[in-house]
Amino acid sequence: MVLEPATATQAAAPAMPQLKDELDIVIPTIRNLDFLEMWRPFFQPYHLIIVQDGDPSKTIKVPPGFDYELYNRNDINKILGPKASCISFKDSACRCFGYMVSKKKYIFTIDDDCFVAKDPSGKAVNALEQHIKNLLCPSTPFFFNTLYDPFRDGADFVRGYPFSLREGVPTAVSHGLWLNIPDYDAPTQLVKPLERNTRFVDAVLTIPKGTLFPMCGMNLAFDRDLIGPAMYFGLMGDGQPIGRYDDMWAGWCIKVICDHLGLGVKTGLPYIYHSKASNPFVNLRKEYKGIFWQEEIIPFFQQVVLPKDCTTVQKCYIELAKQVKEKLSKVDPYFDKLGDAMVTWIKAWDELNPPVLNGKAT
Amino acid sequence: MVLEPATATQAAAPAMPQLKDELDIVIPTIRNLDFLEMWRPFFQPYHLIIVQDGDPSKTIKVPPGFDYELYNRNDINKILGPKASCISFKDSACRCFGYMVSKKKYIFTIDDDCFVAKDPSGKAVNALEQHIKNLLCPSTPFFFNTLYDPFRDGADFVRGYPFSLREGVPTAVSHGLWLNIPDYDAPTQLVKPLERNTRFVDAVLTIPKGTLFPMCGMNLAFDRDLIGPAMYFGLMGDGQPIGRYDDMWAGWCIKVICDHLGLGVKTGLPYIYHSKASNPFVNLRKEYKGIFWQEEIIPFFQQVVLPKDCTTVQKCYIELAKQVKEKLSKVDPYFDKLGDAMVTWIKAWDELNPPVLNGKAT
Repeated sequence: MVLEPATATQAAAPAMPQLKDELDIVIPTIRNLDFLEMWRPFFQPYHLIIVQDGDPSKTIKVPPGFDYELYNRNDINKILGPKASCISFKDSACRCFGYMVSKKKYIFTIDDDCFVAKDPSGKAVNALEQHIKNLLCPSTPFFFNTLYDPFRDGADFVRGYPFSLREGVPTAVSHGLWLNIPDYDAPTQLVKPLERNTRFVDAVLTIPKGTLFPMCGMNLAFDRDLIGPAMYFGLMGDGQPIGRYDDMWAGWCIKVICDHLGLGVKTGLPYIYHSKASNPFVNLRKEYKGIFWQEEIIPFFQQVVLPKDCTTVQKCYIELAKQVKEKLSKVDPYFDKLGDAMVTWIKAWDELNPPVLNGKAT
Repeated sequence: MVLEPATATQAAAPAMPQLKDELDIVIPTIRNLDFLEMWRPFFQPYHLIIVQDGDPSKTIKVPPGFDYELYNRNDINKILGPKASCISFKDSACRCFGYMVSKKKYIFTIDDDCFVAKDPSGKAVNALEQHIKNLLCPSTPFFFNTLYDPFRDGADFVRGYPFSLREGVPTAVSHGLWLNIPDYDAPTQLVKPLERNTRFVDAVLTIPKGTLFPMCGMNLAFDRDLIGPAMYFGLMGDGQPIGRYDDMWAGWCIKVICDHLGLGVKTGLPYIYHSKASNPFVNLRKEYKGIFWQEEIIPFFQQVVLPKDCTTVQKCYIELAKQVKEKLSKVDPYFDKLGDAMVTWIKAWDELNPPVLNGKAT
């Protein structure tokens, strides 16, 4: 496979963009969004929410023709007041503010160093279209289907798959992958500086119930109504002892909550073309505490049990925050602060997204 | 993808066949083994164990040049005596007799209607070589790696994968897939008579701990030393109320035992080309009880707990047999008989495979 991003993207654009009025694209950034040019045929029909990280006085240029709203740190502080403390600064974890202010059912989030990938036939991959497909068809977390997603064209449930499980469950999250620069940690980046991902695996699959996975925020879509309040990217970056675990944290939280609530998480297609490896030395500094901590965090999440009365994402998340404080603050006082921030996040979410009763906001 | 089997297989043969003296190929059959001609470059270096099903007076022709031993029903009865009752007759489940009489560490088993598949570049797929690769590198059942098998060339563990889990665990089973005719149950065959699998998914992955899967016996390899005694294909065919659940049964059993013992099960590559759909009407007759029963069997296997003192495959399997009799015989008296047959199988296995102490058979 020639490792280059797609250039002829116009030809691959659909005539009728799906969920045009029900999906926001959230982009965290510190620079001009020239990368949108390549995505224009796919993204232009949608509304963008740009979360500007770092210096709020800097102007971010957005190519003409895109419909967007942009929030910098001043906006976040103004909108959330003291609760803005739960939104990370100088870290792409700030993107989760975009999830919170969106009024749409679906979110697609992408990093600004991600370009359009090509499939093995050379065709530009419309990543958003594939995420929408993934989100709109059910997941199958209770039993593994060896031909992968049984809802794809040309596939089905194989012999021996229980018929009672073939209805599946609603899909809450669609996790896409990356060609070119793989999402490696700093040690692996240092050891394999030249490794590129050239393998296009033509599969989508449900991550089974009870199994955790490393969720990357670079190319991710989800259903806000089903799982939004759990998509918190934690406290990272400025003033925090850790970075690059924002998406991982969210991934562990959403997975245990999806498992508890009977929702599905898919991974696989679509690919994006990840253009540039971040600096492994900088990454190591951000990551190194996480490398220790994850050895205790993951067993914690593997053992989390949510009580039966946690019937909403919010209730699950508050309970999780409580358990984080109880069980992980012995690892580092940071987790005590993180547990508090998780609660603040839910309060802020509920303020911006008041529960709808009889079709009316209360 | 052009849906034809590969013909130019010679070119794809390796100069040095791996595990030549440590692997047997087990083939259950009722007909002449002309299909071996296409596999000659890949299979000829290995020893074959042919289990002849049905009328033992019939002569099965094997193409010249293959090294093989062949067992018909008379041979099975002679070798096992009364314990031959645990080996199915008039059903490809009889193949497990081959697993038992083998003296090798590894088994590859394949159906005689399976031909050599082509990868997307048109190259013949050496299925056996890929199974050996799968078996010789570790599995990762405790945490999902989003770039699939981290031990393949060009792949690794992604960011957020705990370092303490990167050693992996020994791989006990490698489950391969099928192009052309997918392994569907009778209802799906009836509803989708024309569906063909054309999707070549270039992935191998570990089925996570705690997740069951529908294991197909058509294209399967395993490590006899690690899991052999659990690879029993049950009581099917002649005199039994059910068929086509032989490999499924074995799959459920091996998975819970692998999970208990900390062993890995991989699925994905290699593909074989499955040439001919079996008759869906005949299949429905064989399967229909299984379609009901699996709705209770699968929850049973999902809930099985093996005690800590079950430290060998044999002990696990005897315990499983006990629980099958206790919990499933209320579904149908067949499971009482099956539980007994599971015990008989272990006795027969241990007779033919006496425990080795200090390098000497006892």
